[in-house]
Amino acid sequence: MENLTQHHFMVLFLSLGILLGMARVLGELAQRLRQPAVLGELFAGVLLGPTVLGSIAPEFSAFLFPPQGPNAIALEAIATLAIVLFLMVAGIEVDLSTIWRQGRVGCKVGIASIAIPFLLGFAAAWLAPQALGRQPDADPMIFALFLAIAISITALPIIAKTLMDMDLYRSDIGMVVVSAAIFNDLAGWIVFAVVLGLMGNPAGSGHSIMLTIALTLAFVGAMLTLGRWLIHKALPFVQAYTRWPGGELSFALILGMLGAACMEWIGIHAIFGAFLVGAAVGDSSHLRERTRATIEQFVSFIFAPIFFASIGLKVNFLTYFDGPLVLTVLLITCVGKLAGGILGARWGGMPPREARAVGFAMVSVGAMGIIVGLLALEAGIIRQRLFVALVIMAMATSMMGGPAMRLILRPTKKWRLRDALSSKLFLRELKAGSPREAIQEMTAAVGEAVGLDAEALEAAVWTREEALSTGIGNGVALPHARIEGLQESLVVVGFSDTGIDFDAPDDKLAHAIFLILTPAADPSAQLEITSELARLFRDPHMLSRVLRMQSFTDFLALISASVRP
Amino acid sequence: MENLTQHHFMVLFLSLGILLGMARVLGELAQRLRQPAVLGELFAGVLLGPTVLGSIAPEFSAFLFPPQGPNAIALEAIATLAIVLFLMVAGIEVDLSTIWRQGRVGCKVGIASIAIPFLLGFAAAWLAPQALGRQPDADPMIFALFLAIAISITALPIIAKTLMDMDLYRSDIGMVVVSAAIFNDLAGWIVFAVVLGLMGNPAGSGHSIMLTIALTLAFVGAMLTLGRWLIHKALPFVQAYTRWPGGELSFALILGMLGAACMEWIGIHAIFGAFLVGAAVGDSSHLRERTRATIEQFVSFIFAPIFFASIGLKVNFLTYFDGPLVLTVLLITCVGKLAGGILGARWGGMPPREARAVGFAMVSVGAMGIIVGLLALEAGIIRQRLFVALVIMAMATSMMGGPAMRLILRPTKKWRLRDALSSKLFLRELKAGSPREAIQEMTAAVGEAVGLDAEALEAAVWTREEALSTGIGNGVALPHARIEGLQESLVVVGFSDTGIDFDAPDDKLAHAIFLILTPAADPSAQLEITSELARLFRDPHMLSRVLRMQSFTDFLALISASVRP
Repeated sequence: MENLTQHHFMVLFLSLGILLGMARVLGELAQRLRQPAVLGELFAGVLLGPTVLGSIAPEFSAFLFPPQGPNAIALEAIATLAIVLFLMVAGIEVDLSTIWRQGRVGCKVGIASIAIPFLLGFAAAWLAPQALGRQPDADPMIFALFLAIAISITALPIIAKTLMDMDLYRSDIGMVVVSAAIFNDLAGWIVFAVVLGLMGNPAGSGHSIMLTIALTLAFVGAMLTLGRWLIHKALPFVQAYTRWPGGELSFALILGMLGAACMEWIGIHAIFGAFLVGAAVGDSSHLRERTRATIEQFVSFIFAPIFFASIGLKVNFLTYFDGPLVLTVLLITCVGKLAGGILGARWGGMPPREARAVGFAMVSVGAMGIIVGLLALEAGIIRQRLFVALVIMAMATSMMGGPAMRLILRPTKKWRLRDALSSKLFLRELKAGSPREAIQEMTAAVGEAVGLDAEALEAAVWTREEALSTGIGNGVALPHARIEGLQESLVVVGFSDTGIDFDAPDDKLAHAIFLILTPAADPSAQLEITSELARLFRDPHMLSRVLRMQSFTDFLALISASVRP
Repeated sequence: MENLTQHHFMVLFLSLGILLGMARVLGELAQRLRQPAVLGELFAGVLLGPTVLGSIAPEFSAFLFPPQGPNAIALEAIATLAIVLFLMVAGIEVDLSTIWRQGRVGCKVGIASIAIPFLLGFAAAWLAPQALGRQPDADPMIFALFLAIAISITALPIIAKTLMDMDLYRSDIGMVVVSAAIFNDLAGWIVFAVVLGLMGNPAGSGHSIMLTIALTLAFVGAMLTLGRWLIHKALPFVQAYTRWPGGELSFALILGMLGAACMEWIGIHAIFGAFLVGAAVGDSSHLRERTRATIEQFVSFIFAPIFFASIGLKVNFLTYFDGPLVLTVLLITCVGKLAGGILGARWGGMPPREARAVGFAMVSVGAMGIIVGLLALEAGIIRQRLFVALVIMAMATSMMGGPAMRLILRPTKKWRLRDALSSKLFLRELKAGSPREAIQEMTAAVGEAVGLDAEALEAAVWTREEALSTGIGNGVALPHARIEGLQESLVVVGFSDTGIDFDAPDDKLAHAIFLILTPAADPSAQLEITSELARLFRDPHMLSRVLRMQSFTDFLALISASVRP
């Protein structure tokens, strides 16, 4: 057995750095395009793996990601640790009490949205296993069950993120979708664990199938009842008698790893153990928000990208791309999940429009489907071309949910300050000496930048300003107007070192002036942006910090890092 | 080449869970005993490794931590990743600007405290290499250089932590020590890197010695000038155009890994690259406190314990324990470092008492010395018994610094609310209906718990209460007195559901009463505890949260998690 040499360590850190770097850059890009980050992260692996880099520069690819040897083992160990921690975070995000509260409707949507695609997928895989890419020596029953689960599982993290982005997370429809997704996730994982048990663990524990199933159900049951209760009781002791916040942080992670080990011992993949421990830990009202945030940030921004990018390294997506198969899998999934979600919501008594939105929300298969597919590939149940098709399907359905829900529900866009800023509307040093001149200068900048009638804008803002001056004190003024026909909110930022008298209640001159123009058609936009600015400048040191910024980028960096979502 | 099977993953997660769990529990215990956590973490490895578990249950030990095979590789990869991240955090903690500010004195202490022990260690190792445990085939020069560095390096994290605990971190003496330690660390690591280069990298890059040294110095120089400047310029872009805080977090880690890979490529251990990147990143004023805290918490509480515990797995500390050798190494180190620190401080013009304190502060070799020793062991330069002696020396010197400084400087202890609380002084439900009765009831509890004269206490508190009532509003009252002859501050906690009229400015009845007794000899204790309580209850929801606590543990958990240091 080789040991790790200097060369191995060099390759390890280089490959981790490049993998994480590429994953994060493409993940951010995906989010710019209003898509889930996981899409970009996966694509990073496709670029670095056999599909692209392996074709262009096979030697460099083999140097960076050798398919065998100590480096392959090290990367696989780190990627597995990463996915175990990611599933633990997914578990922490599960809010068990939500299930009980929105129980009836959520449960019905959950049942229908797992049962219908499951039956559809099972039937398709049973009737046409060869066409769908079964490994010739894989058991047809197990293959059918696997495909059924892969297309019926739901991506809770992506759904939750989409709902939050649309400001629907705590709405009635949001709660129904979330509780349905939780139900779906838990049920899907349990069925999946049982199927893994049915396979008889070729390399595993050597338990019999029945024992594996019994142990799995016992672990799930114990974790959600006794384990949950014990963790809830133990957390105050950990908080009281260890250094804050380290005690709580490592308590959660130690349990997660032990849970993972326990599930592997039973003969089931480690991720289920971590997921269940996460659900039990996250359910305790004693877990602090700060600990939750630290774990989630480190895992979501470091470990999850490493794992998802490493998926792309496993297979050549071009060689194994099979158009008809991709379309078939996609079609079965969309029909099954849409029908399941809509019928479930109608069954639960929701009106047709909301039911349609729920249906599209439940379509996302996302990360969970990829993990199921990966396990099936590694267990030798499916072929590479089906794995590729499953990954593409998972990605495509995740891209679908958000836009479709937006089309159906047409929620009013929530305006964020950041979206209304632009480098062209950043005036580092105003020449103006009076409010009138400042407004003139700033509206002129808008006219130039976006081609609006500067004089009409100026008139509108000035009319408002004359009615009641907009100095809010502490050196900040917020002149504003609602503009007929404007599509996007705009905020012009102007600094004045000498100060301009906007008649503030504290009689201070205004040094930072934010001119806020919002669409007349969206009456709440102005309030949203104004209150965000007011919140920002509640910190008495904010003004001096803002005025020190010399460029738009510096200003944007300060704002981005100061605003809490 | 084997691949990772289910069995390997099970062992991986089980060993990680047990290692981290044991390390954290013993680390917390060490801190209870006012010792650095690293002491307990290392001891966890000794317990789980060949020294104890390997002797008692060799089969279980071999199952959990197999010395060879995929699991050994996986654990080593994860432990190496952990130490790279830990050194990156140590780099982030380095405040380069402090060196320039406290430059003159700090520099002199830094030079003396590295030069004197270095010369002493070098001389001893050169003159008596066999007695000190040189590997017979190791180069005498390289051996002597290694030993010299191992005993002259300083543990910045432990020193910083000790100074913070004593509330001296931002004092003049603290700044001198910190800047000296920074100088010492940077110089020590660079010399060490050069020595590693001198070894000619048996398994490494194949660069010539001179090229390795030149590349090392070039990397260090570039990182501390151009790299630092580029990072400082890039951070605002990262903050402005990525999601907060993930962009910044992964930016830092990606650079750390690339720096580690770069140093490994040069032929030097990865940790130096991560340390230098950390110093460059941490130096940027654009790095947010929140990001720093997230990285530090995750690394200090998860990765560092895993690494330090894994050290204990490497060697049998009983078999290779060599009393005379341990004493010799310890003696050389203490004499060298004390002399270096004291002479350096005197040379810099500090008075004798402060100079002595600086000397003891610089004695800690801590984690850094262990890492140097580990690299020397793995490079086949030193024998196991010297490694064991180095580890014991590193631990012993780290235990010495804090208590010695306390003895010399006799700083007034800073009272923290937590230290003054006790389960015996927690009265969940007061019977009292008036302030007088409440004070009587609470002082009686003190009398019973610690055997003081309850009536005298009551009289003192009541006299104070009559002079000016102590209801501070929002349902909180803080009756208090300074007690002659009291050694430790005491806080009695009493809740009253009906409320007691402590004549608060807002006319609200007091539901949470904190009776504060402080030593008359320590005039600031009362103010410290009072202001901590006032800060706690500035949050308007705090009172209702506190009153919901049914036990002392729950109450302590709430307080611990709410007080910010």
